Amino acid sequence: MPNQSMTDRYKIRRDSLRENIKSEEIEGLLISTEKNVSYLSGFSGDSTWLLLTADSELLISDFRYVTQLEEECPGVDLHIRSSKTKMTEALAEKVAERNFKQLGIEGHSMTTEVFDTLDKSMERVELTSICWKVEELRAVKDHHEIQEIREAVRLAEKGFAYLQAILTPEATEQQLAYELEHAVRNFGGDELSFHPIIAVGDRSALPHYRPGKLKIAESPILLVDWGAQTHSGYKSDLTRTMLTAAFPDPKFETVYRTVLEAQRLAIEAISPGVSCKKIDAVARDFIQKAGFGEYFDHGLGHGIGLDIHELPRFSQSSDAPLEAGMVVTVEPGIYLAGWGGVRIEDDVLVTDSGCEVLSSVPKDWDSVRVNI
Amino acid sequence: MPNQSMTDRYKIRRDSLRENIKSEEIEGLLISTEKNVSYLSGFSGDSTWLLLTADSELLISDFRYVTQLEEECPGVDLHIRSSKTKMTEALAEKVAERNFKQLGIEGHSMTTEVFDTLDKSMERVELTSICWKVEELRAVKDHHEIQEIREAVRLAEKGFAYLQAILTPEATEQQLAYELEHAVRNFGGDELSFHPIIAVGDRSALPHYRPGKLKIAESPILLVDWGAQTHSGYKSDLTRTMLTAAFPDPKFETVYRTVLEAQRLAIEAISPGVSCKKIDAVARDFIQKAGFGEYFDHGLGHGIGLDIHELPRFSQSSDAPLEAGMVVTVEPGIYLAGWGGVRIEDDVLVTDSGCEVLSSVPKDWDSVRVNI
Repeated sequence: MPNQSMTDRYKIRRDSLRENIKSEEIEGLLISTEKNVSYLSGFSGDSTWLLLTADSELLISDFRYVTQLEEECPGVDLHIRSSKTKMTEALAEKVAERNFKQLGIEGHSMTTEVFDTLDKSMERVELTSICWKVEELRAVKDHHEIQEIREAVRLAEKGFAYLQAILTPEATEQQLAYELEHAVRNFGGDELSFHPIIAVGDRSALPHYRPGKLKIAESPILLVDWGAQTHSGYKSDLTRTMLTAAFPDPKFETVYRTVLEAQRLAIEAISPGVSCKKIDAVARDFIQKAGFGEYFDHGLGHGIGLDIHELPRFSQSSDAPLEAGMVVTVEPGIYLAGWGGVRIEDDVLVTDSGCEVLSSVPKDWDSVRVNI
Repeated sequence: MPNQSMTDRYKIRRDSLRENIKSEEIEGLLISTEKNVSYLSGFSGDSTWLLLTADSELLISDFRYVTQLEEECPGVDLHIRSSKTKMTEALAEKVAERNFKQLGIEGHSMTTEVFDTLDKSMERVELTSICWKVEELRAVKDHHEIQEIREAVRLAEKGFAYLQAILTPEATEQQLAYELEHAVRNFGGDELSFHPIIAVGDRSALPHYRPGKLKIAESPILLVDWGAQTHSGYKSDLTRTMLTAAFPDPKFETVYRTVLEAQRLAIEAISPGVSCKKIDAVARDFIQKAGFGEYFDHGLGHGIGLDIHELPRFSQSSDAPLEAGMVVTVEPGIYLAGWGGVRIEDDVLVTDSGCEVLSSVPKDWDSVRVNI
């Protein structure tokens, strides 16, 4: 059962949201994004919407979740629709009861079809697309969330130590991915926070590869991009690139050291008030000057939390400033098609005075070589 | 590498879609739903859209997927956008090149925000929301898909046999869920097809419960709702309700036998041409007459395939007729809050002459009691 301080936590978040949207011309805001409903109410299920006004909140759900809602969201009003009433119909009814003329909806997650259905069923109500407002709140983590992410990092690191311990020449990428998830669960995690990338040899040059049948001994390069998720849904996201044998091309060391130094410089630059694109540029410029600019064709990193990709985004175009409480990945990479890739990724908390790197898996050049 | 027959399979699907949408006033249809792109092209990654016209198809993606697209989708035209060009911008460019005046979009999955962005960036193009057309095609499985679902059922059943074998009084719901997934992977599956429901005691009355810390010995009732997924993404979905000790209330047997007979009658009624609501009514009426009508408040079942919930839907309102090649779950349940619930679920293939039950885990009353 939630205790008083947990109930307060959700109330604080809802009040912050009210503050952030008070300039919008709406009488209520419909929260239909699953994780946003969870963030604002504590409810951990799905198929539930939250109708928020300046001084009230109503969760609309169905009979499957009555018990769970009562346990997880004490003090929040509930409307349980019958199985014959669609969610959009139940909402229209509640909006009509309140005589709203303007309703905000989350246009970045609501489908066009649901929007059209609501628009037709609520003729007197003007629907306004209000995008990313809860996600903007979620970008800055509170104390509880930071603790959860620390735990997600700890679980990921325990899992990785296990993975290194069980490496054998015959193990396949896929087997290792399965064992990694099993280990994270045995250590107390919920699951991996995303399908891990475990890539042998030139597959390491594919930033979104999925583990396949390649065996560890088939090439010296082994790239692992993984994370763990706590039971309350918070995530970590790390990457290490290793050598399971000597690599024939001395360029590997150059590439590795370039990525590592680019990451170090970017992390060093992280501080509240600095724009995301500035941090991205620190790493990108360094890689560019080293002659690998064209081989780093993705953003430098992203926020993590309830989603594996959250705000803020380290991209070449994001003007958003960093704020204390944000937790971001820093993950430069260099990918040479048909040869191999190197990516190094850590999770970093923005603090009042700079930043704190939450993850601590060794990554210096001397730690790259692992025994199989 | 895909062979010729695989390439043909995707071409056949695209041609079927073209046939089904030819009455729509559109010059092209944008497929942006990830699994629909996969179904029509063979591409197994994400962040990729398919622009389909009467006589061409174009996959729009980014550099991360070049190698994978070339391997998985030979013969399909590719446009690789740069990381500086947004997906919506890349699409607008390609639509402009083609001088389209009407473009169909998948309104059931495209967000309002993306729709608005496209609408603004393609001033001369009328966007029309075309919903569920690929999903309607996907409801009827081809030979390859039926083989994949058979394999998903086989994996689920192997996993369940393992689960029963490792049951102990001290095992928790959560531990069993983890072991079940690990087993399915060891048997050759990709993962469980959804978060399994493993519910002890009165938790079995919560149709969407997630495994927690309850131990098997805490109550005689154990409900397991699980499925397996093959590496190509096809899913199975089964439920069994067991007793790990004698249940003190003889009503349990009445409830169990009622659910079992409702399922038997519904399966017996499955045949091409019969409406979905008719099948739903067969089970619902039986449960109603047995006095438990108000305790079965969800649809009787749903299609399975690349998604765990697909068309068709067995609901009280669905007029859609069954067709040979559909694969559906049949899963009546009776849920008594605070007491316990019984659900029995199997996967059923609609055939030319009736149906074939694909799953074969014992479910008669004599098999309900398991040793722990």
